[in-house]
Amino acid sequence: MYMRNRLTIGLFGFGCVGSGLYQVLNQSTLLNANIKRIVVKDPNKSRSLPDENFSFDKNVILNDPEINVVVELIDDADAAFNIVTEAFKKGKYVVSANKKLIAEHLDELLDLAKQSNVSFLYEASACGSIPVIRNLEEYYNNDSLSGIEGICNGTSNYILTRLNNELKSFDEILLDAQEAGFAESDPTLDIDGFDSKYKLQILILHSFGLKTKPEEVLNIGIRHIKTKDILFAKEKGLRLRLISYAKKVEDRIVAFVAPLFVKENSFAYDINYEFNGVSIEALFSDKQVFTGKGAGSFPTASAVLSDVSALQFDYKYEYKKLDSLNVELADAIEIKAFVSVSDSRNLDKLQFTTVEEEYASPEYSYRVGTLRIDQLTHDFYRNNPDLFIAFYHDADVKIVSNIDKEELIQEEMS
Amino acid sequence: MYMRNRLTIGLFGFGCVGSGLYQVLNQSTLLNANIKRIVVKDPNKSRSLPDENFSFDKNVILNDPEINVVVELIDDADAAFNIVTEAFKKGKYVVSANKKLIAEHLDELLDLAKQSNVSFLYEASACGSIPVIRNLEEYYNNDSLSGIEGICNGTSNYILTRLNNELKSFDEILLDAQEAGFAESDPTLDIDGFDSKYKLQILILHSFGLKTKPEEVLNIGIRHIKTKDILFAKEKGLRLRLISYAKKVEDRIVAFVAPLFVKENSFAYDINYEFNGVSIEALFSDKQVFTGKGAGSFPTASAVLSDVSALQFDYKYEYKKLDSLNVELADAIEIKAFVSVSDSRNLDKLQFTTVEEEYASPEYSYRVGTLRIDQLTHDFYRNNPDLFIAFYHDADVKIVSNIDKEELIQEEMS
Repeated sequence: MYMRNRLTIGLFGFGCVGSGLYQVLNQSTLLNANIKRIVVKDPNKSRSLPDENFSFDKNVILNDPEINVVVELIDDADAAFNIVTEAFKKGKYVVSANKKLIAEHLDELLDLAKQSNVSFLYEASACGSIPVIRNLEEYYNNDSLSGIEGICNGTSNYILTRLNNELKSFDEILLDAQEAGFAESDPTLDIDGFDSKYKLQILILHSFGLKTKPEEVLNIGIRHIKTKDILFAKEKGLRLRLISYAKKVEDRIVAFVAPLFVKENSFAYDINYEFNGVSIEALFSDKQVFTGKGAGSFPTASAVLSDVSALQFDYKYEYKKLDSLNVELADAIEIKAFVSVSDSRNLDKLQFTTVEEEYASPEYSYRVGTLRIDQLTHDFYRNNPDLFIAFYHDADVKIVSNIDKEELIQEEMS
Repeated sequence: MYMRNRLTIGLFGFGCVGSGLYQVLNQSTLLNANIKRIVVKDPNKSRSLPDENFSFDKNVILNDPEINVVVELIDDADAAFNIVTEAFKKGKYVVSANKKLIAEHLDELLDLAKQSNVSFLYEASACGSIPVIRNLEEYYNNDSLSGIEGICNGTSNYILTRLNNELKSFDEILLDAQEAGFAESDPTLDIDGFDSKYKLQILILHSFGLKTKPEEVLNIGIRHIKTKDILFAKEKGLRLRLISYAKKVEDRIVAFVAPLFVKENSFAYDINYEFNGVSIEALFSDKQVFTGKGAGSFPTASAVLSDVSALQFDYKYEYKKLDSLNVELADAIEIKAFVSVSDSRNLDKLQFTTVEEEYASPEYSYRVGTLRIDQLTHDFYRNNPDLFIAFYHDADVKIVSNIDKEELIQEEMS
């Protein structure tokens, strides 16, 4: 009764999500799709399916004319870029969950997909199983959207939740999280906000039609958190959450990933452990909140599956806002911030515009006030492990200036 | 760059939602749409726009060939049916927020829209501003969906929240709600679960591809609630919520609207006052919860706007599950239930299969146990104001039988 494309899938990667997808797809009777080939990297790894199901040469998929859909679920963003762009050139549709790949190669990937007239879907890359991209594309495709923020990283939220509940040290909880499988052995991407930033970039693209580069969006993480910071938050009835934040202020987009103190009335306050949540603020629909499992084998596979399912109907993202909304990133903003240190001399490393609150003692000091965040870079954050920096969720964000950087450079040169 | 239909809108109704839409549409620069004509019923009502904007004859819109979209936002479901079907015949696309219209005329409307090859969108009819239909159509269009439930009626949730917080009588809170504009002067549709049921029918259609008639789905409401029932819930750490409930048990759909006792871990527990929420349970994505404002001028207008916006791209619901999922309504189920009465003699009006808990006193008695709910009809509920009936949210639902009714009738006749 409806036209449906028969989907013959080549699957790259058979880790947690890939094997989940395999299982999900096998149990679905509505989908006109099958996985024809699975290509993996390591021939020696033991897997849940017999060896004959796997190949190790990407061309087994890329050169198979019957395969019309490539599902890319590998870790390595560079190898993924290679696979995805080759798939485009061969006219294959691509589904990916690789936020790093997308955030780093936004421009090229979109162009290539368009040139090849293929669909490129990546719902699972933004907030795991929460269908946020599709909503931004289909439901919020008018210009009323004023802000989007999310807890988009389950690992850091798991750690923050346990820090809040158990008041143990960051290192101890991180170790626990690693042992429980909630954090990678190298947790950098998660706890330093990279994963959250890649996802934010994807959200910004579909919310505001703005392409960004990773280096343009600040990410500071939760690595330097002290138990006293948690106590500070608890005393004030606040919780710390690592938030991917984007807000439209006139024609500027304020965007960052940072720990925020959230109040009980915030959507983020009750999102605990590995759960994710996205809050979309639109002029007329008020705030809407979507919550669900952000990561994990089946939830992520489910988002991938919904992309595959959409391909039956030739669904493509339309990027309607890309050329119609004229917004750019705000480059200097002021926000209410909290900085704590063990060594009080470090407190002056950041210049507060105004100070509201200050505390000093030999082993713990903090300052609360207004901070221009263009002083902050990820390198500054990384190089100053004594500083824990957080912003206040419900504070006003003020755009200080949007200096034309080229002009500034020319001035400096002249 | 993208093909967009120019939309010329004829708007029926200029109440809360209609005037909201007018304002929202005027502020949107992305939308290629304008409202050409507004038809209202009462020439004497004072409105926020000058009189010359309004007509009182539906044909002003229906016979205008330039108008390609009819937005129907009137109260009267019969008049709306008339308008909508005539609009279909004239090849106009229709956007409606009228759940009663849709729930009562599902079959005819879908057929007529299909015959006329027009789009018929009604996002605002299911859960106000929460984009649930679009999600069910686009994201959960595979067969993994196992359940959907929602707080879909802001009025009853507002009353239940205040009952819980203030422990006043139902009548007192209802009166307050009416004065505050949260309840209509005739609150039947809201507090007796009709509004929730119409919405549930729409959710069931898009979740499970099942067309239902209003008389096939049980709705019992919150009208008979006693303060002692609230105390009973509070003692056990439970809250009462009026839930639109649908669950797939094998190839049967268990569906009803009823007050449920929810635990703190339920999505519904923290949805308070006029807020709505929908929880979608899918095999692989686990539970996902969408919350937002269910009703109100702008939130509803915003959902209408997103439908209008989708029409620019000729969007149609595809009803993919309608003929592919073979499910039917379960006609006899057993569930854990609570029944309370003032007059203990009334307690025997419902036959419990098993009794877990019982309390009796001269002015208040209750019984908790397993109940076959095919004993329950809306008429029974309405005719027994002394009985407050609620189910337990986290209890197992057991299908007792799905008797082939025709067979039964034949047996009786023979």
